[in-house]
Amino acid sequence: MKFNFKIEKKLEGTLARAGILNPPHGAIETPAFVAVGTKATVKALTPEQIKDLGAQVVLANTYHLYLQPGDEIVKKAGGLGKFMNWQGPTMTDSGGFQVFSLGAAYGKGISKIVKITDPSLMIPERFDDSDAPRLATIGNDGVSFKSHLDGSLHYITPEKSIEIQHNLGADIIFAFDECTSPTEDLRYQEEALNRTHRWAERSLKRHLELNALRQAQGKQGIALFGIVQGGRDEQLRKISAKAIAEMRMERVDPVTGEASFTGFDGFGIGGSFAKEDMSTAVKWVNEILPEEKPRHLLGIGEPEDLFMGIENGVDFFDCVLPTRLGRTGTIFTSAGKINIENAKYREDFTPIEEDCGCYSCNGYTKAYIAHLFHGKEMLAGTLASIHNLYFIVNLVKNIRNSILDGTFHKYKEDFLKKYNTK
Amino acid sequence: MKFNFKIEKKLEGTLARAGILNPPHGAIETPAFVAVGTKATVKALTPEQIKDLGAQVVLANTYHLYLQPGDEIVKKAGGLGKFMNWQGPTMTDSGGFQVFSLGAAYGKGISKIVKITDPSLMIPERFDDSDAPRLATIGNDGVSFKSHLDGSLHYITPEKSIEIQHNLGADIIFAFDECTSPTEDLRYQEEALNRTHRWAERSLKRHLELNALRQAQGKQGIALFGIVQGGRDEQLRKISAKAIAEMRMERVDPVTGEASFTGFDGFGIGGSFAKEDMSTAVKWVNEILPEEKPRHLLGIGEPEDLFMGIENGVDFFDCVLPTRLGRTGTIFTSAGKINIENAKYREDFTPIEEDCGCYSCNGYTKAYIAHLFHGKEMLAGTLASIHNLYFIVNLVKNIRNSILDGTFHKYKEDFLKKYNTK
Repeated sequence: MKFNFKIEKKLEGTLARAGILNPPHGAIETPAFVAVGTKATVKALTPEQIKDLGAQVVLANTYHLYLQPGDEIVKKAGGLGKFMNWQGPTMTDSGGFQVFSLGAAYGKGISKIVKITDPSLMIPERFDDSDAPRLATIGNDGVSFKSHLDGSLHYITPEKSIEIQHNLGADIIFAFDECTSPTEDLRYQEEALNRTHRWAERSLKRHLELNALRQAQGKQGIALFGIVQGGRDEQLRKISAKAIAEMRMERVDPVTGEASFTGFDGFGIGGSFAKEDMSTAVKWVNEILPEEKPRHLLGIGEPEDLFMGIENGVDFFDCVLPTRLGRTGTIFTSAGKINIENAKYREDFTPIEEDCGCYSCNGYTKAYIAHLFHGKEMLAGTLASIHNLYFIVNLVKNIRNSILDGTFHKYKEDFLKKYNTK
Repeated sequence: MKFNFKIEKKLEGTLARAGILNPPHGAIETPAFVAVGTKATVKALTPEQIKDLGAQVVLANTYHLYLQPGDEIVKKAGGLGKFMNWQGPTMTDSGGFQVFSLGAAYGKGISKIVKITDPSLMIPERFDDSDAPRLATIGNDGVSFKSHLDGSLHYITPEKSIEIQHNLGADIIFAFDECTSPTEDLRYQEEALNRTHRWAERSLKRHLELNALRQAQGKQGIALFGIVQGGRDEQLRKISAKAIAEMRMERVDPVTGEASFTGFDGFGIGGSFAKEDMSTAVKWVNEILPEEKPRHLLGIGEPEDLFMGIENGVDFFDCVLPTRLGRTGTIFTSAGKINIENAKYREDFTPIEEDCGCYSCNGYTKAYIAHLFHGKEMLAGTLASIHNLYFIVNLVKNIRNSILDGTFHKYKEDFLKKYNTK
């Protein structure tokens, strides 16, 4: 394993555990909520504000940084953390999810990937760039898409995603995968899963080559997490968990020249879930994934889902929800979400939550924050994002503590009872 | 005088001076640049960021806060400083400038004030609310205008402006005045000046009544600055300076019942200046205004104008320029302004200025700030505003120091030579 991951305590009768992961830029206590800094900035916040609210690690999006400012610029700046002045650990996703979801979001920017039905594709093949698309051509090896910024055409293969991510230089990166919609039929889920596995092997192979180069240059290695997919189907989820857990690629030590077989340093659980399927999917997967490696449930962040994920063995979460909701005036409280622009807050001179430890609740009233939103002031988004991120980061921290002191079930029951009163 | 103002040093052969003003919320070293927090927030900055960049005092706009959230809400919140969580001294302008300039800006929102030619109007008259406009009617005693937010009609008299400002509760407030355009003819400037003087008396009278009430309630008194107008005309400027300097109104002590005659606690120099007229206008005025009271040149903030103003006896400046320019990517440097969105900064991994002491220059490169602007990220405005405000606040601080150590002329020459190289 790339970075030491120590499990401190497991919660009996569940898959939950509290641990510590040690990437180069500082230890992360898990379970942990990762702040999302899509374009190398957690929207509206300075790195000091991110740190002060308790976030331990920031995840940026490969797709966005590849298009703007370009991964070569981030590399020249000294990597993601140095570029954005964040001293702590960093992650990047693989860009796969953005390529697909932005494709849907922008209507027609994404070329539909060619469907592969040949079972031999489960067998890894050497990457051959010769069939890479030129302009609008589509290849079997990756995804071509139009930039949402300028309409320019791009082609991302698993190798390319890993190369971009090595340029961005985060502590933890992810294999290139295909994220499917829960509405796709089983046939398509199977095809997509085959692609994801093939791409996982190619991601791992290229990653090991690039890590060997880094090692030869005396640089810190990067950790690669493989991504489990499979949609809502039990069999596919289990096949995927097993395939990704057991995947090994040959690694030649650049110093000794010795060959060994190396797998992923941790795992991502991907997918665009229907809410009711999520807990079973996570459980199926984590019962198979090796206990001693960290697991990241990608893109999930509602309070009830955090309890569910942790109970089912998840160590990391990331989600844009706290900051995205914050910027539109929707604010987390222990009694559910509120909309701060509601007229009743205009003359409410109490903080969002009396007993909240965040910066915003310690200096500002609901009336002031409501005023900032009504006035479309930038500080509105900052104060609401700080509170929301603190709320979620701190919730995961509290859940961690409840695992350590054995009060998880009571804490969960009390929290959700109050949270769902509204 | 309301607050102690001590002149520490005068610069021989000029009107420049370095001093200290002591309002209730903390001493202000002058000359000082006042950060503008239009709607009770310095756009994109937290109060800690404002303080850290060296700003000593924040000025909010009466017009904006009257319309949103309403001065009664700010009063209930404990006043401007408490509402916005700014611990230091505060100012509010009178709303006169915004009423007129937003009228121009929004095209037709402002009812043109009735022109008064009767010279008897220079004689103060008791305020009579009976001719105040109802809906769209126009009175002689103030200005009626449409809100730029919802089109609602409002009527502001000098008394109303002072009442609003007492509700906002800043340390220093301003008399209600009419700001004229430099393109208006002399006849109009005369008429407007008469109004401004009449309104100054009425502002002072209402202010003394409200301050007496505050005193009776055991609250800190507020300081009122009278505003000198007169456009570009020497005679009008001198008439105005003399009229405002000598203006006195009867004040009855709420405790002893004794009557005395009281003037303004300081002075604002108003006007929408043509650049070439500014230095003469400021000089004419400050040669007449009493030396022992502070003077504020309203709405001015370009580096060359700061030198000019200070050399001609100005103690305070305020201007939206540093933050407004900052939000659009125009950044102050000692060699002139730059546009950070320029392509050449995309791979410039140095700070905006190597020897700058601001937060932004100590953590971020031009390449990163350029990226934030290209990506339309909120942190872009924050980092650029911090640098720009620091640059201007610190420039005024350096000018102050150059008065104290007698190097003003050399500092000015060196600064402007480098600043105007581009």
